[in-house]
Amino acid sequence: MSLVPLVEYADATPEVRVVYDDIMATRGTDWINNFWRALAAHPPTLARVWNNAKSIMAPGALDPLAKELVYIAVSVTNNCEYCIHSHTAAARAKGMSGEMLGELLAVVGLANETNRLANGYRIPVDERFRATSGGEVGAGTGAPT
Amino acid sequence: MSLVPLVEYADATPEVRVVYDDIMATRGTDWINNFWRALAAHPPTLARVWNNAKSIMAPGALDPLAKELVYIAVSVTNNCEYCIHSHTAAARAKGMSGEMLGELLAVVGLANETNRLANGYRIPVDERFRATSGGEVGAGTGAPT
Amino acid sequence: MSLVPLVEYADATPEVRVVYDDIMATRGTDWINNFWRALAAHPPTLARVWNNAKSIMAPGALDPLAKELVYIAVSVTNNCEYCIHSHTAAARAKGMSGEMLGELLAVVGLANETNRLANGYRIPVDERFRATSGGEVGAGTGAPT
Amino acid sequence: MSLVPLVEYADATPEVRVVYDDIMATRGTDWINNFWRALAAHPPTLARVWNNAKSIMAPGALDPLAKELVYIAVSVTNNCEYCIHSHTAAARAKGMSGEMLGELLAVVGLANETNRLANGYRIPVDERFRATSGGEVGAGTGAPT
Amino acid sequence: MSLVPLVEYADATPEVRVVYDDIMATRGTDWINNFWRALAAHPPTLARVWNNAKSIMAPGALDPLAKELVYIAVSVTNNCEYCIHSHTAAARAKGMSGEMLGELLAVVGLANETNRLANGYRIPVDERFRATSGGEVGAGTGAPT
Amino acid sequence: MSLVPLVEYADATPEVRVVYDDIMATRGTDWINNFWRALAAHPPTLARVWNNAKSIMAPGALDPLAKELVYIAVSVTNNCEYCIHSHTAAARAKGMSGEMLGELLAVVGLANETNRLANGYRIPVDERFRATSGGEVGAGTGAPT
Repeated sequence: MSLVPLVEYADATPEVRVVYDDIMATRGTDWINNFWRALAAHPPTLARVWNNAKSIMAPGALDPLAKELVYIAVSVTNNCEYCIHSHTAAARAKGMSGEMLGELLAVVGLANETNRLANGYRIPVDERFRATSGGEVGAGTGAPT
Repeated sequence: MSLVPLVEYADATPEVRVVYDDIMATRGTDWINNFWRALAAHPPTLARVWNNAKSIMAPGALDPLAKELVYIAVSVTNNCEYCIHSHTAAARAKGMSGEMLGELLAVVGLANETNRLANGYRIPVDERFRATSGGEVGAGTGAPT
Repeated sequence: MSLVPLVEYADATPEVRVVYDDIMATRGTDWINNFWRALAAHPPTLARVWNNAKSIMAPGALDPLAKELVYIAVSVTNNCEYCIHSHTAAARAKGMSGEMLGELLAVVGLANETNRLANGYRIPVDERFRATSGGEVGAGTGAPT
Repeated sequence: MSLVPLVEYADATPEVRVVYDDIMATRGTDWINNFWRALAAHPPTLARVWNNAKSIMAPGALDPLAKELVYIAVSVTNNCEYCIHSHTAAARAKGMSGEMLGELLAVVGLANETNRLANGYRIPVDERFRATSGGEVGAGTGAPT
Repeated sequence: MSLVPLVEYADATPEVRVVYDDIMATRGTDWINNFWRALAAHPPTLARVWNNAKSIMAPGALDPLAKELVYIAVSVTNNCEYCIHSHTAAARAKGMSGEMLGELLAVVGLANETNRLANGYRIPVDERFRATSGGEVGAGTGAPT
Repeated sequence: MSLVPLVEYADATPEVRVVYDDIMATRGTDWINNFWRALAAHPPTLARVWNNAKSIMAPGALDPLAKELVYIAVSVTNNCEYCIHSHTAAARAKGMSGEMLGELLAVVGLANETNRLANGYRIPVDERFRATSGGEVGAGTGAPT
């Protein structure tokens, strides 16, 4: 059960409706999902997070589907049930196939495993990796882990 | 300081050398980074993790760069210093630009924020998202969050 | 479903009843919430955690509401559904308004985001911050992040 | 070592200088800490995060020190070395005493412990807590855990 | 609700049935729990994870019950509801008593608390601990924390 | 660098010395590791955490080495550098071999991976697991995952 009431469009203040309208216009849809209806309990958060998300998730050097995959990876690592459902729906709408989902979760699982092996063994970062941070990386360093 | 000695090629058992050789052949390189040299302290783990990584990170429905971005996203969320350095090096070798890194970390930051907003407010998953899990998703659900 | 049976007062051993009685007396209430009824499955844990909580959450240099806000911040970051519900109830009883909850979750979200930006970019700690650890901090360092 | 070069004021673009100037003016200081100098590698992130932080951390229903305590609690839970140093410096500048720091970390430790006890035992949320979510909470529910 | 359909034996491909058959033969049972039926949505993940788990969880220098306790400790720390249920069931089948579960969760809670105290206070690792990593440790270092 | 000064025995108050003396007597050693010297900055935390650790880590239904393995598993999952070093030292002093460390980290890695697969796919808990929680578990449920 939500900690706050979910705000319906009909009950929303003008300040909230402006955001709701922009969400629907940007997405070409006529409904508002629960995430935004809960954030509307604190209008400054609603406006801020929507504007951030709209800008960050827009096409750029990374395409929108790649961004959704990253979003899912984080949400799975953190175990955010809501975000996993909403962003796998979004990713599927943007072309994520079942095979892609399978590979995505395989990478997420592997990274969560190797993160603990690297942290657990306290493995020192190779000088070669440090040297290339912020700079160019030559051939032969494309290590899977 | 590592919890275990890092195993040099010259000191490695034949069992470990087989893996080291495959790592170098697969990557077309002549060095072994510290991650594998630490795992060599427990040869079954070395062989298993390498074979998993080789298979999971290979090209598939997702391209290798997309997989690296996902790997970095998980490693940043978990704060694995080693993995962040090794996989940003790998991603740069596979074409990740500075702009892509900037967008990647922006998405990772946003998802970590919204994960807590969704979990914190205990927002219920929309029926529409549940209904489409495991199935097709129609137009208009490509929500950024 | 709980991994262990929840222990009712009527079924409790004298050892457990001592703790239950102290919980009710300390809070001025006549019921025991599920957290303690589950811990009663392992009486040493029940007594220890209750005594710790009673002592740590008591008024001190920080007032009880500030402590509840911190408790919620941790519980949201870790996604503890039980703790979020029990401690937002406690915080509301101690005066947390809806506006305060909104600001609290905004800070929690921001910190979760910037934690990943700082860890992700591997940003070195400023000498000025290190120098002031454990000592006094002068004017002009009250940085928001 | 940082993944990106830290941008000095002298080397900054006008777009970045606008943010740097606002940081210094807002704080009444003449230096920029490394967090912002690293974010400057991706100017949209710099501007966005600064504006968010400036707005979220400003005085509101919660005072600035309470917000810093929450920020530290999250940063400690996530193990963000940079953020722990920068925000304990900020909190000390805003009046956090050593005793307050001691109590803060005690609460953070307790919450991290009880979060796992509640999640580990899979303790069901009391109906009484669910019933009061989003509404008023009467006397006697101010439970420490 | 699962993101993918759970695959029944009757509907499984020969590739999946090979794994299902090995799971049942290895465990001496006639059913497949949901974890594997979900992974079957991506057969390479099913085969890989099963083979890893079969090998890692087998008796070795650590006995199978000790491995289950470790598994539960991680799952509780990460809040994996499924894994907590499946692995406490497995641990009970291997002899975990209620008293052992109580002590296990007490240690998990304590470690989660002290992890934050150590990280929060940024406590430097004692030279004596670093010196003994990878080597022998003499008498008198068996510190509880 | 520590956030607080590390308290030497010579500089300690009588209240702190009582704890230090008990630590050394309990362990049969003549030094105090940094963890306790940092906690001494807040004496109530020092006394409380020491008493908790002394009691929780003592022999019980689980032997002290099993408890150390669990402690390491949590510390690796949370990436607590200090705790990993101090508790692997403690575990080695209690008999943990290199092979046991290798198996331990393999289980920790596997559990971190499968936690994300179970959470990521949102796999529902089998009725059979729920039914046996809190009760007896028959043959054939000793599933590795």
